[in-house]
Amino acid sequence: MSKNLTTRAEDYSKWYNELVVKADLAENSGVRGCMVIKPYGYAIWEKMQAELDRMFKETGHSNAYFPLFVPKSMFEAEEKNAEGFAKECAIVTHYRLKNDPDKPGKLMVDPNAKLEEELIVRPTSEAIIWSTYKGWIQSYRDLPLLINQWANVVRWEMRTRLFLRTAEFLWQEGHTAHATREEAIEESEKMMQVYADFAQNFMAIPVIKGLKTETERFAGAEETYCIEALMQDGKALQAGTSHFLGQNFAKAFDVKFANAEGKQEYVWGTSWGVSTRLMGALVMTHSDDNGLVLPPNLAPIQVVIVPIFKTDEEFEKISAVANDLVAQFKKLNISVKFDNRTTQKPGFKFAEWELKGVPVRIAIGPKDLENGTFEIARRDTLTKEVKSADGIARYISDLLEQIQSDLFNKALNYRDTHITEVSDFEEFKAILENKGGFISAHWDGTPETEEKIKELTKATIRCIALDRKEESGSCMFTGKPSTGRVLFAKAY
Amino acid sequence: MSKNLTTRAEDYSKWYNELVVKADLAENSGVRGCMVIKPYGYAIWEKMQAELDRMFKETGHSNAYFPLFVPKSMFEAEEKNAEGFAKECAIVTHYRLKNDPDKPGKLMVDPNAKLEEELIVRPTSEAIIWSTYKGWIQSYRDLPLLINQWANVVRWEMRTRLFLRTAEFLWQEGHTAHATREEAIEESEKMMQVYADFAQNFMAIPVIKGLKTETERFAGAEETYCIEALMQDGKALQAGTSHFLGQNFAKAFDVKFANAEGKQEYVWGTSWGVSTRLMGALVMTHSDDNGLVLPPNLAPIQVVIVPIFKTDEEFEKISAVANDLVAQFKKLNISVKFDNRTTQKPGFKFAEWELKGVPVRIAIGPKDLENGTFEIARRDTLTKEVKSADGIARYISDLLEQIQSDLFNKALNYRDTHITEVSDFEEFKAILENKGGFISAHWDGTPETEEKIKELTKATIRCIALDRKEESGSCMFTGKPSTGRVLFAKAY
Repeated sequence: MSKNLTTRAEDYSKWYNELVVKADLAENSGVRGCMVIKPYGYAIWEKMQAELDRMFKETGHSNAYFPLFVPKSMFEAEEKNAEGFAKECAIVTHYRLKNDPDKPGKLMVDPNAKLEEELIVRPTSEAIIWSTYKGWIQSYRDLPLLINQWANVVRWEMRTRLFLRTAEFLWQEGHTAHATREEAIEESEKMMQVYADFAQNFMAIPVIKGLKTETERFAGAEETYCIEALMQDGKALQAGTSHFLGQNFAKAFDVKFANAEGKQEYVWGTSWGVSTRLMGALVMTHSDDNGLVLPPNLAPIQVVIVPIFKTDEEFEKISAVANDLVAQFKKLNISVKFDNRTTQKPGFKFAEWELKGVPVRIAIGPKDLENGTFEIARRDTLTKEVKSADGIARYISDLLEQIQSDLFNKALNYRDTHITEVSDFEEFKAILENKGGFISAHWDGTPETEEKIKELTKATIRCIALDRKEESGSCMFTGKPSTGRVLFAKAY
Repeated sequence: MSKNLTTRAEDYSKWYNELVVKADLAENSGVRGCMVIKPYGYAIWEKMQAELDRMFKETGHSNAYFPLFVPKSMFEAEEKNAEGFAKECAIVTHYRLKNDPDKPGKLMVDPNAKLEEELIVRPTSEAIIWSTYKGWIQSYRDLPLLINQWANVVRWEMRTRLFLRTAEFLWQEGHTAHATREEAIEESEKMMQVYADFAQNFMAIPVIKGLKTETERFAGAEETYCIEALMQDGKALQAGTSHFLGQNFAKAFDVKFANAEGKQEYVWGTSWGVSTRLMGALVMTHSDDNGLVLPPNLAPIQVVIVPIFKTDEEFEKISAVANDLVAQFKKLNISVKFDNRTTQKPGFKFAEWELKGVPVRIAIGPKDLENGTFEIARRDTLTKEVKSADGIARYISDLLEQIQSDLFNKALNYRDTHITEVSDFEEFKAILENKGGFISAHWDGTPETEEKIKELTKATIRCIALDRKEESGSCMFTGKPSTGRVLFAKAY
């Protein structure tokens, strides 16, 4: 199976596209730009959802659900947001089909069923949610309002790629309202931290926390916090954003509250989201030329057991041992599959589970029965070892933790060796071309310079890292003064 | 609070509408026919989802996700389905807005961004899913394919009511593919049984399992299984359906498989779904003039503790006891809230939690501190008792189980006393008018008679109960022969 996969060195982009389809994560649908998330891919997304949902609830948030459609006039209310978002989107104009009188068996849009006001399929929900919050918030006692929504959204992308950029995608969007500026900023920062913890502890992806520049900021936000990851091809990927909205949406939708002194004030807001794009980040961070490599904390199947047998008698004996192993693993909450198909050979099974990124494979053959051993293979390192049955469940449990942390450290090492400091633009271009990764450089702080660099190199400022050193220098492009380095990269 | 609620006797419909809003379950949105599901309502839906999802997975199903949009031509492929479904629906015709040159700050649909083919916002997903299954199924080894999707769907309803009938609603839709007719029928029946078990064990709603008549059947199905519940006003509510699709969609989308002998055959299908409509059923089955009554198995908060105090010292002492209680409850997986707000009086809190249907309320006052007791109030019976602190957690845990089963039995008793056998049409009309409920009557089996009865009385055949007696008789309307009784009712 693995032999059919294009290698990363040959064509990274092709490797990704093939892998997503061959590993049964997702595929393109018959609807332009929309994907089908297949059961195996969806099972990973469900694990992400479960963990994020737990983290949101632990930090005091509740889930709710708001309409899919946003009337056109609501979009116009927050001008900057409308400018940034409302352009490329799916627009509902009619509400009825009828039989086509000229073509038997065909349907046509009923021209008499035109909507008075067009409805936009939500590209994001600030407008509809803030227009609702107006009815929910009267007094400081109603604050903070801490709400999250799991939903589908649509942005009419012209060039799409599975998970990374699709017309419809799944995400969560948090929308919170606060009595003070400080509290809203604290919330934005807290949720960025939740995303960073999730990326690092579950996805095993190291991320840089930072602020977006004005150009890259969310339309309608005063400040956008982000987490930025680095893929194996040296391109960056924005893995999550958290926006401090100031009072922009409160003003657009007239959301005020009476403070403790009874005075009316505009509410302060945040919004934050991650999407099925994370699936793309997961694939591109860890996987290799043999297929997916999944971190144990997100793998739908953590351990697969493959029997190696010639006779029915061998199969029965191995099955007994395997079933006992399954029972032991379940007690330790290890998710395990005994691949007892008799329609496929072991070699086929090995290749299939390798392609699907199962972290640990246990093979049991007649010799293992004799010796009381198992052959244990790690997906991430492609190494094998023979282990005795004593204490095997605990051993595997520890091994899964080890793999999780090894994957993170490997990705961290790659990331850290791909942050290059440069001082002039020629060096910048050379690094960008030959090595990729994040490039740390001085910048004069103007959108014009940022735009110019983007035009010339396709690199953008990924973020102003929160932990950057204050360091005076001069812009690599204009030579004008700068107060600190920012991180550039080509990005997904 | 409760005083503001219209009573059921005054106006059942108004009572329902008010209760859904006042208990913070849902509200109408600024988008025609679409609702906002508020956090408290959504928390109940999440509990339903979690339980159903567990049951689906236990019966071998996996989740996946398919596109929101269905190209118009896909709808036309399965003619009956198109006839039944594709008419009243939201249609996307354009994909871009632009600045309106005549109205500064306003947006307009860009006439140059018209789609070549219109996209329908899914009213259900058979078409898009079966067009996908074509690529997934080649051989009998690929079967059965057991997939479920949690999604939003849109049907352009003209008269909407919160949860019961909304333009957009949330649901799950199972879509399975099988090698044989028998296996597909078995699956349809199994999922009907899953729904019945869920309704009875979690929602505490007794249901009748049955088959729909041809008229009431899902468009494109050969047989529709359903579970029918009875609301407190004597109207029936279809709580879930499971369809045996025969080979209809396989033929429409050319989905064939090679059987074990290598011969090509069309695949057999099922689909089954329940929606946020269940929230409406839950409210209308158990709630009363004081507000919601929630079965403990679905209550986001099962127990609320309200402190009754005058001084800070009392409050502190009561808090210590309450916090200990919370810890004890959590150990038994009882979800508990200590309402320690100092901004509200106990009476206000009592009314609020009554309105929100929390099954058990525990009040702790200074006297209870002295005596080592608690005052325990049941929401369903509105009864109170004083209990000693010894073994209180176990007592409450048992009490919650008791409430769950009492609610079911109460609803069962109401339902069973509201199934009336009639033999002629005058009696039928009288019962329908004066008592409501299910009416068990002979019917000649023709759609014409069914239609006529509906025209004259608004009653429809809810189902042909699976456990009905074979009994020859004559149709109450036409006098023609009948082989058994069917269940009529007015329905939501």
